Amino acid sequence: VADLLRVGILGAGGYTGAELVRLLHGHPKLSIVMVGAREKAGKRLSEVLPGTLGVAGLSDLVLEGFAPEQAPELAKRVDVAFLCLPHAASARAGKALYDAGVQVVDLSADFRLKDAATYEKWYGEHPATELLSKAVYGQPELHRAELSGATLIAAPGCHVTTSLLPLAPLLKSKLIEPSPIIIDSKTGVSGGGRTPAPAFHFPESSEGIRPYKAGSTHRHVPEIEQELSLAAGQPVTIAFTPVLVPMSRGILVTAYVKPKPGVTADACRSAASELYRDGLVSVLPAGMLPDTLWVRGSARAHVAYVQDDHAGLLVAMCAIDNLARGASAQAVQAFNVARGWPDALGLPQVPLFP
Amino acid sequence: VADLLRVGILGAGGYTGAELVRLLHGHPKLSIVMVGAREKAGKRLSEVLPGTLGVAGLSDLVLEGFAPEQAPELAKRVDVAFLCLPHAASARAGKALYDAGVQVVDLSADFRLKDAATYEKWYGEHPATELLSKAVYGQPELHRAELSGATLIAAPGCHVTTSLLPLAPLLKSKLIEPSPIIIDSKTGVSGGGRTPAPAFHFPESSEGIRPYKAGSTHRHVPEIEQELSLAAGQPVTIAFTPVLVPMSRGILVTAYVKPKPGVTADACRSAASELYRDGLVSVLPAGMLPDTLWVRGSARAHVAYVQDDHAGLLVAMCAIDNLARGASAQAVQAFNVARGWPDALGLPQVPLFP
Amino acid sequence: VADLLRVGILGAGGYTGAELVRLLHGHPKLSIVMVGAREKAGKRLSEVLPGTLGVAGLSDLVLEGFAPEQAPELAKRVDVAFLCLPHAASARAGKALYDAGVQVVDLSADFRLKDAATYEKWYGEHPATELLSKAVYGQPELHRAELSGATLIAAPGCHVTTSLLPLAPLLKSKLIEPSPIIIDSKTGVSGGGRTPAPAFHFPESSEGIRPYKAGSTHRHVPEIEQELSLAAGQPVTIAFTPVLVPMSRGILVTAYVKPKPGVTADACRSAASELYRDGLVSVLPAGMLPDTLWVRGSARAHVAYVQDDHAGLLVAMCAIDNLARGASAQAVQAFNVARGWPDALGLPQVPLFP
Amino acid sequence: VADLLRVGILGAGGYTGAELVRLLHGHPKLSIVMVGAREKAGKRLSEVLPGTLGVAGLSDLVLEGFAPEQAPELAKRVDVAFLCLPHAASARAGKALYDAGVQVVDLSADFRLKDAATYEKWYGEHPATELLSKAVYGQPELHRAELSGATLIAAPGCHVTTSLLPLAPLLKSKLIEPSPIIIDSKTGVSGGGRTPAPAFHFPESSEGIRPYKAGSTHRHVPEIEQELSLAAGQPVTIAFTPVLVPMSRGILVTAYVKPKPGVTADACRSAASELYRDGLVSVLPAGMLPDTLWVRGSARAHVAYVQDDHAGLLVAMCAIDNLARGASAQAVQAFNVARGWPDALGLPQVPLFP
Repeated sequence: VADLLRVGILGAGGYTGAELVRLLHGHPKLSIVMVGAREKAGKRLSEVLPGTLGVAGLSDLVLEGFAPEQAPELAKRVDVAFLCLPHAASARAGKALYDAGVQVVDLSADFRLKDAATYEKWYGEHPATELLSKAVYGQPELHRAELSGATLIAAPGCHVTTSLLPLAPLLKSKLIEPSPIIIDSKTGVSGGGRTPAPAFHFPESSEGIRPYKAGSTHRHVPEIEQELSLAAGQPVTIAFTPVLVPMSRGILVTAYVKPKPGVTADACRSAASELYRDGLVSVLPAGMLPDTLWVRGSARAHVAYVQDDHAGLLVAMCAIDNLARGASAQAVQAFNVARGWPDALGLPQVPLFP
Repeated sequence: VADLLRVGILGAGGYTGAELVRLLHGHPKLSIVMVGAREKAGKRLSEVLPGTLGVAGLSDLVLEGFAPEQAPELAKRVDVAFLCLPHAASARAGKALYDAGVQVVDLSADFRLKDAATYEKWYGEHPATELLSKAVYGQPELHRAELSGATLIAAPGCHVTTSLLPLAPLLKSKLIEPSPIIIDSKTGVSGGGRTPAPAFHFPESSEGIRPYKAGSTHRHVPEIEQELSLAAGQPVTIAFTPVLVPMSRGILVTAYVKPKPGVTADACRSAASELYRDGLVSVLPAGMLPDTLWVRGSARAHVAYVQDDHAGLLVAMCAIDNLARGASAQAVQAFNVARGWPDALGLPQVPLFP
Repeated sequence: VADLLRVGILGAGGYTGAELVRLLHGHPKLSIVMVGAREKAGKRLSEVLPGTLGVAGLSDLVLEGFAPEQAPELAKRVDVAFLCLPHAASARAGKALYDAGVQVVDLSADFRLKDAATYEKWYGEHPATELLSKAVYGQPELHRAELSGATLIAAPGCHVTTSLLPLAPLLKSKLIEPSPIIIDSKTGVSGGGRTPAPAFHFPESSEGIRPYKAGSTHRHVPEIEQELSLAAGQPVTIAFTPVLVPMSRGILVTAYVKPKPGVTADACRSAASELYRDGLVSVLPAGMLPDTLWVRGSARAHVAYVQDDHAGLLVAMCAIDNLARGASAQAVQAFNVARGWPDALGLPQVPLFP
Repeated sequence: VADLLRVGILGAGGYTGAELVRLLHGHPKLSIVMVGAREKAGKRLSEVLPGTLGVAGLSDLVLEGFAPEQAPELAKRVDVAFLCLPHAASARAGKALYDAGVQVVDLSADFRLKDAATYEKWYGEHPATELLSKAVYGQPELHRAELSGATLIAAPGCHVTTSLLPLAPLLKSKLIEPSPIIIDSKTGVSGGGRTPAPAFHFPESSEGIRPYKAGSTHRHVPEIEQELSLAAGQPVTIAFTPVLVPMSRGILVTAYVKPKPGVTADACRSAASELYRDGLVSVLPAGMLPDTLWVRGSARAHVAYVQDDHAGLLVAMCAIDNLARGASAQAVQAFNVARGWPDALGLPQVPLFP
C-alpha cells in the first residue's frame, strides 16, 4: 500500500489522540506510522491504549517523544501530523512541522482565534502569531472553500461545534436577533481529558450534574463569538454556561434565541437543511429532539429547532459526540475536505447504539 | 408509643412512596400503619420494596387497595395520609379522606393549581374543584404562615421547586425583570416514575442526555408561573426546557434572567439568605456552584447566583434531590410546619455522599 | 457497486440488529438492502434507529414485515440474511430462507444446540430439527474449517463466547480438570434486549449489581457445556452464575478451574496464543487483567490467566462486548470466514475509548 | 443536651469519614465536636463536604490537624474517636488516644489482624503490636459478647464483611467443606477512596468492569481467612478475586462452596436466620437474589443461598453498601453494641431507593 499517506499523531495517549487512533486506523487512505507522547514515551501504544493490543499495525507501535527541533526529521517519515497537545506546546510543534512541510491538523485552541490579543487574554503568550492568518478554521460545513488544499487546519473545540452548528444557519439567514444568545451546554466527562482530578473521580461525577464556569467566563466564549459573528456578519454576544453531566461522551446544547418577527421552527429547519446539504449534519424533523445517545462514536451532528410561542423564543439544539464530531472526527472530516475527498471518508456515521 | 401519629401512604410502591417510607420510618413523631397500592395490593411491602426486608415495623406491612368509599373506615386507622397517586385519582382519594377528617398531604398535581380552568387545560377534568381554594401550597419557605394548621397540603412538583427556590427571592425583592425567565431544568431519570418505558430503559438512558417537551409545553409550566407570579406580585412568563440526564436522582436548574440596573450576584445572595433564614435552603457563597451530588437523599436545597457581565444577565441556579426535596422530603417538611414542628424534624439534611 | 452482496437483517430494531446495521454499513463487500421488524414494520429505519438519520443508504430504508412464506420472494432480493429474531420464530424464518437458497446467519439460540431434546427442555418445541445437523456453530476460532462455505451459521450467545474463549485452550491442551468449572459471568444491561422491564429500568439498574438465575439454571448452560465438552473431548460440567452490571455493554467472565499438576498461567497463555494465532482474540500478557472498557464496540476478545498458588486454582478471564464480539460482530466474523474472507473484514478492532 | 457523648472523627474528609458525618449527625446519643484532616486542616467542613453547608452543628466545624502527641489534649474534648486514617497512621493515633483514655473505633486495617507477623507481611511494620490482643473485632453479629464494653474496636473491611456474613453461618454449622472457598467480590468505585487515580477516572470506570488483584493476592485475604477460620474452628483457605464495578457504592459477593452431603439451601437459610436473629442481617427467602440497590445507604446486609444441584455446589451471596455496612455504619453498630445500646440506634435501615 505504497500510496497511503503516512500519519503521525502527537499526543496519542489522551482521549482525542485515542479517538484519532480509532478513526484513522479505519481510514482507507492513511496509515498511522508514528505516535507521540511525553511522559509515556518509550511505552508500547498497547500499554497506554490496551484496546489496540493484537491489532495489526497498531499493537507494536512505540510512543515517541517529540521536540520541535525534530520536525525536519519527522517530516521525512510523515506526510500529515495530527496534534493533540496542550495549548502553546501545540503551536510550537505545529509551527515547526508546518515549516518543515508537514500538513498539520491541530486539535488544540492555538490556531482557532484570529486575533492574537484575544488569544493572549485567555491562554497567555502565543508562540507563533504569524501563523494565525494562515490557519484555516476546520469547521467543514462552514469553511468548505477555504479548507480546500489547506495545510494548517485548526480543528474547532467541542462546545464551539455544538453551539455553532444549530445557530450558524439562523444567523446567516437573519432569522434571529444576534444578541444575546443564551447557550446552555451540557458535556460528558471525557471533555475534561484523561488526567484524573477530583471533579472527574467516578464517585464524584456519577450521579451528579453541575455547572462549571458560569457567567460566560469559559475560554471557549471568544471562539464561539468569533464564529457566530462571522456567520451573522455582525458582532454576536453570548451567555454561556457549561454543565458537567455523568456520562463519558457527548455534548448537548440548548440555546435560547429571539426570532425575528414571523420566523418559525420550520424556517429554521429549512435554513439548516439548505446550509448543510453537503456535510455530516442531520436536521431533525419536527417533533424529534436530539439525544447524545444517537451520535455516540459518530461523525454526524444532530440539530433541531422548537418554537416557543408561549415565551416568544426559539430553542435551537444540537447533540454531538464531543470526542468524535466535537474533536477528532471533525478534524479528519476537515482533513478529508482539504484533500478533496468526501467528508465522510473513513469516518463512522452510524453510532454505537446502545 | 401511644402518642405517635398514625400515617397511611397511598401509592407506597412508587418512587415518591418509597421515599416516604424511608423518611417517615425515621420520623420521631409518626408511625407508618398503612401502605396502599393498586396492582400490588396483597403483597408484602418487602416484596415491592425489598430494602424494607427485616426492618422492624415495615417488613410485615401488607399493601392494601383503597377506594374513596373506604375513607371513613381508613379514617379510624390513620391520622394523616400521604398520597402518591396519579392525578385525578389523587383528588378523588384526597377529597374522600379530607371529608372523613384525615389530614391529607397530596404529592400529585391535583391541588397545586389555584385555577380550575388551567388544571383542566393541562390535566383534564378535576374531580374536586371545591377543594382548590382550601388546599395550601406546600412550599414551606414561601407559604409558612398559611401552612400552619393546614389539613390539606399540595406538595409542589420537582421542576417547580428547583425553579422557584432560586427565583422567588429575586422576584420578591424586585431585583430582576419578571419576563421572560429562561429555565433550563435537568432532571434524573427517577423523575419519570417507576413504570418501565423505552426512554428510561437503562441502555437508552445511560450515556445519553436529551431535552424533552421543549418549547414550554411541559405541564409544570403553569404551576411554575403561578408561584413565580405570586412571588413577583405581577405576571411572570417563563421559557421552560426539561432535560433528561443519565442519573437516578437530582434536578439542576440554570435560569437566565435580566437584572435590574446595578443588581449584583451579591445582592441576590443577600435577598435569598434573608428569605431563607428559616427553612432548609442553603445559599452557596460566591465561587461555589451547585451540584446534585451534594443534596442526594437530603431535604436541603442549594441555590447559587452568578453575574454575567459579558452578556448583561444573571444566572440563578438550584440543585435538589427530586425525590427528596423535590417531592417526599418537602412534603414532610410542609407537614412538619403544618403541625408546628421544626422544618427538619425527622428529615436527613446530610446527603448520601458519594 | 454491482458486486456487493445484498443483505437483509430480520429484527433490525433490536440491539443485535442495530449493531449489525452499524457493522454491515461499514463492510466493504455488503450492502444492506432489506431491514425487517414486526410491530415496527412500515416505519423508516431512522425512526427506530435515529442514529441512521441522514446516513446515505440507511436513512430511507423502511422496515418490512416478514413471514416464512415470503422467503422465496425475499430470496430474489437478498443473498444473505442475518436473523435477530426470538427463538422458534428464528428457526421458522431460517428454515424458509435456507430452503429458498439464502445464506442464513442466525443470532438466536435455535441452531446452536446439536441435541434436539436438550433444545426442547430449555426452549420448547423446535420447528426445524432437521437443520440442527446442518448448521455450523459460528465460533470462528474454534470451528474455522467447518465454517468454510457454510450456508447456515448459528452465531453463539454472549455468555457462551465469554466462557468458551478463555477455557477452550485449557481444555484442548488438557491443562485443567474438566469439572466442575465455576463461571461467574458479569453482563451489561443491553444483554437483556431492547424491551423495557423493571429489572432494566434505569433507576433500578444504575448503581445496583445483582446475580440472576443463580444455580446453573440459565438456559445458556447446555450450550456452554456442549462447546466446552467438544473442546475437552470429554464431558464438562459447569457451575454458572450470570450477574447484571450497571453498564450498557460488555461481559466479563472470571472462571475458577483446577489446574493439572505443574500447570502455570504461562502455560495457559501459550496454549491460548497458539490456538488463537489467527482470529480476533488477544491474550493479555502477565500482569494485565481484562476490562470490558477495552473492547467496547470491537470485534476482539481479551483473555487472561492468573495462577492462584494460595488456593491451588487457576483464574481464567475474558472480556468482550456482548453485542459486538458476543453477538453481531462475531456473526459477521463467522460469515467472513464462511466466505473465505479475512476474519476482520469490515469489522472494527479498535474499541470506542473511552 | 449535656448527656450526649462527644465524638471526634479523624479523617473526616474521606469517604468513610463523610459517611460517619452523615450517620453520627443522625445519632441520638452522640454529638460531633471535632473533625480532623491532614492536608485540608484549617478548612471548614462545608468546604470539603459541601453537603453539610447550612446544617446546624456541622456547617461551621473547622477541620483540625492531629498528631499523636495531641492525644491528651483531645481526650479532654472527646469521649470517642472514630479513625478513618491510612494504615500505620491509624495505629499511631489509635494507640495515643487509647492510652489517653478515649474510646477508639478504628476503621483502618491496623487492629483487625491478630497476628503481627501477618500484618507486617501485607502492610509493613506495625506501630503498636501490644494493642492487637486488646482490640475487639467489630463484627457485631459474630463478636457480640466480646464487644460489650470494648474500648478499642477494629471495624472490619468491606470485602471481609461481605464474605463473612454469608459464609460464617455455614462454617459454624458445619454445612460446608472449609476449603477451598471461592469468593468473587464485586465492589463499587468508592471502595478505592477519595483520591483521584486513573482506574477511578469517570471515563475509565464508567461502562467498564474489571478484576483487580486476581489470584488471592489482595491484602484482605488474611483478614477473611482469619475470621472464616474462627467461625469454622479450623483453617479455611479461600480463592479471592475483587472486581471493580461502575457504580459508586455497594459490594456483591458470590461465593462457591462444596456442601456436606445432603445439605440444602434451606438448611443454609435456617442456619443464617438462627445466627442473625439479632443484628442487622436479612436472610432472603428462597427465590430472591441480593442486589446492592436494596441496601444503599443502609446498615443492613442481605444474604442469600442457592443450591446448584447440577454442579454439586452451593452459591452463598451477600450484598451490602461498602461505605455503610462495609465500613462506617458497621463501625457505629459495633460501637452501639459496645455501649450496650440497640444495634440499629441512629442507623438508617431503609435504603435510599432508587
